[in-house]
Parts: sequence; structure tokens; C-alpha cells
Amino acid sequence: MSRFEHVRHKPPTTLERDRELILALAPMRSNVNLSRIVRLCGCAGIRKLIQCGAGKVDREIARDAIDYVEIVQRRSLAPVLKQLREEGYTLAGLEQTTGSQSLFEYRYQRKTALVVGAEREGLVQEELDLLHDVIEIPVYGQPYSYNVATATTMAVYEYCRQFPSG
Amino acid sequence: MSRFEHVRHKPPTTLERDRELILALAPMRSNVNLSRIVRLCGCAGIRKLIQCGAGKVDREIARDAIDYVEIVQRRSLAPVLKQLREEGYTLAGLEQTTGSQSLFEYRYQRKTALVVGAEREGLVQEELDLLHDVIEIPVYGQPYSYNVATATTMAVYEYCRQFPSG
Repeated sequence: MSRFEHVRHKPPTTLERDRELILALAPMRSNVNLSRIVRLCGCAGIRKLIQCGAGKVDREIARDAIDYVEIVQRRSLAPVLKQLREEGYTLAGLEQTTGSQSLFEYRYQRKTALVVGAEREGLVQEELDLLHDVIEIPVYGQPYSYNVATATTMAVYEYCRQFPSG
Repeated sequence: MSRFEHVRHKPPTTLERDRELILALAPMRSNVNLSRIVRLCGCAGIRKLIQCGAGKVDREIARDAIDYVEIVQRRSLAPVLKQLREEGYTLAGLEQTTGSQSLFEYRYQRKTALVVGAEREGLVQEELDLLHDVIEIPVYGQPYSYNVATATTMAVYEYCRQFPSG
């Protein structure tokens, strides 16, 4: 018998409580990036994503996450961030700024809104000023920046690692 | 003055030694997934990727990583894995199998080849039998599986977290 054999259709890991991580996205230029982030949320057990702008989620990419994740559409990010602050979320933005902390060392609050800027502009100053924390991901080689969906994947993974059962 | 202000064109984090992580990929169906993984490697400071099959790397997606990362093209994965074993790499496959370990708990060896299967088939038994370890990533919701480039992103992130300076 082989040491490693495929386990197909293994049920997902059970969360002991609902995820208190939500995502808040600036208007994405690319529907592919948006849709990849939606699929990521579904797999990670994240139930809510706030999407600013007119981006369309592609069902071919997002798969079943399109039904699993509540996708709330808003016009612009700053009012969303103000409301999330009032609701008690810790607002953690993904960006490279003065005062940013490495994702390797960052300790997430359970009730966090991960705030993600658009592909080129990132988060603008008005949005940065509404954050509690800024998280940056170390880059080692070329190109000097991760794709936005790739960076979001790392930040979500790190949250799940810190809260493996919700 | 704002607490968080953009830092543009920040130089990348310096590696104290070359990364001893390399990637070995089964023939990918999607050139987009392949190209995203190449860009990921570039950003993470990984200098070598072995790509099986005839996939073409898209420069628009991979960006400067296409020059930074040595991309070695091979016909099939099993002979590559045999050679890497002889060269002293620990072969860690990304798959859901009997005997697989959670990425949350897995301790990487510095000199590791991360082995990634294709989108649908994953790694076949002949390939699994050549691995030292199998790593699985917990999935919580729907769909039940991460996209291959997303899963690879998480595995590479975890390696970088464990070896932040190479």
C-alpha cells in the first residue's frame, strides 16, 4: 500500500464559530482578480465581501463561492470603512506605508475587516486615515509587488492560520 | 501628518542567503495559472521553477519574474522528482492524501522542492510515491478546493514566513 493516496471529496474543515473576518475591496480594475478573491473567500469560510465599484464576478472563476459568500456592492470605500469602524471591526489595510507591520508578525484581531486597494493605486490617503493597522507583505525579488489577489490570498491564509477553527 | 503614508518604490527585503526552495509543476492546463505562479516565485525570491509540459508563460502576467526566475522545461514530472531526490531536496507535494500534513503545522526543510499537480488531476500515484511529505491546506467553505495558483501562493507564503531571510 502506498503511503500517500488521494482522498477525494473530503469534507471541509468545520469552523467552531462563524468567521469574523470580512473583506472590503476598492473598485478592482480586473474582474478576474475580483472573482479570484471571491473564490478565495468561499474556500476560507469567509461569508461577507464588500465590493466597491461596478466589477462583475465571473461564476466560472468564483465557482460555488458566488452563492456561499454574501457580496455587498457599494459605490466607494471610505463610507464603508467608517461604518465598519462603528460596527467594531478592526480595519487592517494591505499596503506598503509608513507604520505598516509585516504580515509575518501581525496579530489579527478576530473581528477584522481586511481592506484591499485597487491594482495600481492601492489605498488612497483618505482610506488609509480610516485604518487601524496597515499590513505589508515582504517582497524579495522581481517584480517588486504581488498581484492583488495573490497578496489577499496571503493575508487571508495568515488569518486562517491564526484562527484555524473560526 | 498622517500615520500611514504610501511608501512607493521601497526596495525589496534582502535575503541573507539564496532561497533553497524550488518549484516543480506538473503540466498546467492554464497558462494563466502557470504565469501567476511564475510571478509569485519572482516576488518571493525563488530562482528556479521546473515546468513540465508545453505551457507558455505570459509576460503580461509574470512581469519581470520571467527574467528573474530560471524556468526549466521538462516533459514529465516523475523523472524530475527522482533527480531532485538525488540532489538532496525534500519533496513536499501539495495534495489531499492519506498521511498529508496541514500547512498550518508543517515544518519546511530549507532545501525543499514544492511539487504541484495540475488543475484537475492533482498529483498521480507514481508522483505521490516519490514524495517525502504531502501538505494539505484546510478548506472551510465552498468551493471545496483552492485554485492551484492560490494554493501554491499559500504554500510559498508559509515557507517565506518560516525562512524570512532565506
